[in-house]
Amino acid sequence: MYFPSWLSQLYKGLSRPIRRTTQPIWCSLYRRLVQSSQRRNPEFNSFAVRTNTCGELRSSHLGQEVTLCGWIQYRRQNTFLVLRDFHGLVQVVIPQDESAASVKKILCEAPVESVVRVSGTVISRPAGQENPKMPTGEIEIKVKTAELLNACKKLPFEIKDFMKKTEALRLQYRYLDLRSFQMQYNLRLRSQMVMKMREYLCNLHGFVDIETPTLFKRTPGGAKEFLVPSREPGKFYSLPQSPQQFKQLLMVGGLDRYFQVARCYRDEGSRPDRQPEFTQIDIEMSFVDQTGIQSLIEGLLQYSWPNDKDPVVVPFPTVTFTEALATYGTDKPDTRFGMKIIDISDVFGNTEIGFLQDALSKPHGTVKAICIPEGAKYLKRKDIESIRKFAADHFNQEILPVFLNANRNWNSPVANFIMESQRLELIRLMDTQEEDVVLLTAGEHNKACSLLGKLRLECADLLETRGMVLRDPTLFSFLWVVDFPLFLPKEENPRELESAHHPFTAPHPSDIHLLYTEPKKARSQHYDLVLNGNEIGGGSIRIHNAELQRYILATLLKEDVKMLSHLLQALDYGAPPHGGIALGLDRLICLVTGSPSIRDVIAFPKSFRGHDLMSNAPDSIPPEELKPYHIRVSWPTDSKAERAH
Amino acid sequence: MYFPSWLSQLYKGLSRPIRRTTQPIWCSLYRRLVQSSQRRNPEFNSFAVRTNTCGELRSSHLGQEVTLCGWIQYRRQNTFLVLRDFHGLVQVVIPQDESAASVKKILCEAPVESVVRVSGTVISRPAGQENPKMPTGEIEIKVKTAELLNACKKLPFEIKDFMKKTEALRLQYRYLDLRSFQMQYNLRLRSQMVMKMREYLCNLHGFVDIETPTLFKRTPGGAKEFLVPSREPGKFYSLPQSPQQFKQLLMVGGLDRYFQVARCYRDEGSRPDRQPEFTQIDIEMSFVDQTGIQSLIEGLLQYSWPNDKDPVVVPFPTVTFTEALATYGTDKPDTRFGMKIIDISDVFGNTEIGFLQDALSKPHGTVKAICIPEGAKYLKRKDIESIRKFAADHFNQEILPVFLNANRNWNSPVANFIMESQRLELIRLMDTQEEDVVLLTAGEHNKACSLLGKLRLECADLLETRGMVLRDPTLFSFLWVVDFPLFLPKEENPRELESAHHPFTAPHPSDIHLLYTEPKKARSQHYDLVLNGNEIGGGSIRIHNAELQRYILATLLKEDVKMLSHLLQALDYGAPPHGGIALGLDRLICLVTGSPSIRDVIAFPKSFRGHDLMSNAPDSIPPEELKPYHIRVSWPTDSKAERAH
Repeated sequence: MYFPSWLSQLYKGLSRPIRRTTQPIWCSLYRRLVQSSQRRNPEFNSFAVRTNTCGELRSSHLGQEVTLCGWIQYRRQNTFLVLRDFHGLVQVVIPQDESAASVKKILCEAPVESVVRVSGTVISRPAGQENPKMPTGEIEIKVKTAELLNACKKLPFEIKDFMKKTEALRLQYRYLDLRSFQMQYNLRLRSQMVMKMREYLCNLHGFVDIETPTLFKRTPGGAKEFLVPSREPGKFYSLPQSPQQFKQLLMVGGLDRYFQVARCYRDEGSRPDRQPEFTQIDIEMSFVDQTGIQSLIEGLLQYSWPNDKDPVVVPFPTVTFTEALATYGTDKPDTRFGMKIIDISDVFGNTEIGFLQDALSKPHGTVKAICIPEGAKYLKRKDIESIRKFAADHFNQEILPVFLNANRNWNSPVANFIMESQRLELIRLMDTQEEDVVLLTAGEHNKACSLLGKLRLECADLLETRGMVLRDPTLFSFLWVVDFPLFLPKEENPRELESAHHPFTAPHPSDIHLLYTEPKKARSQHYDLVLNGNEIGGGSIRIHNAELQRYILATLLKEDVKMLSHLLQALDYGAPPHGGIALGLDRLICLVTGSPSIRDVIAFPKSFRGHDLMSNAPDSIPPEELKPYHIRVSWPTDSKAERAH
Repeated sequence: MYFPSWLSQLYKGLSRPIRRTTQPIWCSLYRRLVQSSQRRNPEFNSFAVRTNTCGELRSSHLGQEVTLCGWIQYRRQNTFLVLRDFHGLVQVVIPQDESAASVKKILCEAPVESVVRVSGTVISRPAGQENPKMPTGEIEIKVKTAELLNACKKLPFEIKDFMKKTEALRLQYRYLDLRSFQMQYNLRLRSQMVMKMREYLCNLHGFVDIETPTLFKRTPGGAKEFLVPSREPGKFYSLPQSPQQFKQLLMVGGLDRYFQVARCYRDEGSRPDRQPEFTQIDIEMSFVDQTGIQSLIEGLLQYSWPNDKDPVVVPFPTVTFTEALATYGTDKPDTRFGMKIIDISDVFGNTEIGFLQDALSKPHGTVKAICIPEGAKYLKRKDIESIRKFAADHFNQEILPVFLNANRNWNSPVANFIMESQRLELIRLMDTQEEDVVLLTAGEHNKACSLLGKLRLECADLLETRGMVLRDPTLFSFLWVVDFPLFLPKEENPRELESAHHPFTAPHPSDIHLLYTEPKKARSQHYDLVLNGNEIGGGSIRIHNAELQRYILATLLKEDVKMLSHLLQALDYGAPPHGGIALGLDRLICLVTGSPSIRDVIAFPKSFRGHDLMSNAPDSIPPEELKPYHIRVSWPTDSKAERAH
């Protein structure tokens, strides 16, 4: 009862990531978080007008005179008060004797969420009144003096209902939302983890933390870059999407090992779960190869990983882009579970089933399948229907469900055409069990894999909503994906090439000759780091040869080389071989804390439409303030009409 | 001879800050820098394709097989090569025997500043050929294999002359400038010092590193804020000058102790030694008073101070704004030397000197003086003339130079009207010595102090150019300035008030009543931190009471309260008492490294006109890229004409 529902909600939230402990305790969790990065606990009361935090008091403090500052969380019948700070809750006994009337008045009249300072003695709770669920549950504070530091006005909603409110309301009153234990935990974990990353990079491995400018020049093809008008007519800065050029120039400048927790900008308009500004752990080093960067990052994550999670096991497994596509149908596979894509073309060499025959007769034609464990038990007929519909609608592909238990092959008459020998071979190849379902499709390799990759994830979600435990929630499954193609055909004009990642990516050493013959086939030295099916980082060995860089930019990509002349010139003046990586910090912390959205690990995020719902940014600007920047608003015609009304 | 002139130049530069050592050695200096922040040295060779850095090799490495990567610094008669990396220089012996012809060819043909990798054995230099000035001067490398990693094109200038070139050229080829030991030292010291600040705040005192948005809403009176057009017609983000609002909202959100190494933006057009983007160490905490913040910052600087400088002594002295003005004529006194302003009004109670009489007869009229030590020896007649001219031109004030040695009172006939008793009283009050000069002025208190404050600094510079050692170059003299006025009269309309710092500054507790009677007289809880005459930080206890904040904003400052409604609302919902500070990191590092400009402690600074001279930002943007942002360029009429030509 000392924990209003929204708090216990949060405790539950906190418990999730802690190795299935059944009695998660905020305080011990927090202490573990704190201890991990240094020898002793930080001093939370230094420089402050309190002696202790509310949450730290224990039986060991009995008899101590303490001064606490905190928010009134809860009051019961004018006898008890629960005081809260970032560290936790503590029970305060409201004095009832006449001589303490003024103290009683303050503590009884202050509205909930008001800020008070109390001084008093730590005493034992009366026998039987201890609260084992509360970390401070053995003690309470016998108050001598109290001071109302700030009264809280009536809140726009009951704070205990707050977490149930819409996200828009949480963002509008972000300063109230931040008081929740979950937000406190997320932001503190983020701070701790970044601090440990810095220790690893700076103190252990000699990396130099260097700040690079954010007011820069637009990059070729730099759509999605925010513009910043300057006071020179027609001249604009751009907010870069990453410090890519600067970090390479630092290597040319002999800085050798650079890192930065870098603010980056990307204007993608409205996209869910993206932010117009975001943070990446940006790293570059000289005289390194791909395996060097991989070891560096494995060590970094291992060192900075929160102590309340299972330790990170290194090295991380590596798959090539081609393998990832063939096995998981995606370049960011969720490797927490199996259900891999299996090529079963050989089984159906002489099939009578029409669409399989068709597919196999074409170039790159294959038959592929995934096995849904216990699918016969967990999936319903309508699930299979919607899977088939999805395949038809989005991939123009047929899906054939195959049940081992033959009499359950609903809606799949063709399945009867599968011969017994084929069934046995299927069972052997796919290692299927009695209650499994095999989803089979046929067609061009990449397309078939992509479809099955999508279905694999859909089915996993479906099985879990039906109660199967497919992915261990405490598991963090890292994976390197390597050997990406260097170029992709341009979407608008597939005969032209564009960089698969960015034009500074070095080609795979074995494929350099292909640049001059079949550039489309050249692989790159790009690598992605994937965690639980999310891309959390990517990087590459860069081109350090000016001639090669010019050839790729001008001849292959047909970019305007002038805009990058400073970089090309730098490569000419003794650029060392170098490579690097960037980790998406928001996404990483989101996964580590098990948060539903990256907005839950950012103190003041924008809404998906790019608005700050608290302050109402972006905002109108009076025309006279635009003048120094030599710009005018071009009102769209229809909104001009609107404004006229 | 192994050190080309630009390097020895740099060594000299490095030596300056090291407590007057006469044999500064880059390596030991660097090691001290590195050691200071952790138990063991960082591993500079992890993950890299080298075994050692060039600069680390010593006699203790004799016989070891090493692989080094670096730049060719220098080559002598095709027999020796000096290889450089960030750590230092090492001598490589070019093999002369036939069997090593290919290695010889590589090492002899590669132009200076090319990047090579060599493998070989660490051997002793032949007796008599050791170079005691070179940290690696006892050894050299007997090469077995060599690889040209990247050839350097002919540089646009001799690299040894580079440091003599204009700053514009250094900024254009910043990647070459960064190879200098001075820039390497500055950026590495900056990284180390910030890392130690983080350790202090995060690990020792429980501060949480929280990133706040830079795409925000304009603030009231927020001129000097860069604008960022959004995709909504007429709506703009602003790049904030500091995270002020966010850090206060974090306190309302119960985050308790926040810090951030925050990127800030200020569009001041062209101003020398300012940058459009800059960095501050931004700190805020709850339940703290002014002395708490002061102790925190003293501890922070003490902890993070580089080991190669004299340790910081705490606590720092404190003066009030009023005292600072009266004693030094400025709110950022350089306290490395005396020459304080002395009020000598009493000496001249019954003077016959006209302008003194005049001044003393007016309200706030005073006679003030400073004493120039050994001025009679170091200052020339024309110096005194230009001092008097400066006073007349810029302050409309007279300056009376008084020499103890009476026959040297050039150009100061009125000095003869100073009576002997007055002279003796002057000598006593000002503690003057035989060769000193007293500069005396009379007028309104503030104006007289400001003038003498300026002359105090001018004369100090003058004395130093003439050879006097007035300010110890190894001295770092910190000072708190407190009790600033809360408001100042607006320049355009002196009957209206504006905040002396910002509108969130809390009034001095003793002066709250003045807000309602004589607000102009109210002092604030603002504090500035001054180092060697430079303001390097400032902060305040903030207003946490919504009503008081509303009164100050709306009634006293006549600001549009609507634009801050989110902040006022936040104060209403249980805002704790809080305060904070921000340190200007660029300026601080500039002073610590003794650099002539903040551009020397920033990797990629803008020119004073806000240009990136390397990439040529800001740049023109094609009109179609402006469309999504609903803006058009308004070409100024004359430049329109220009473009038509």
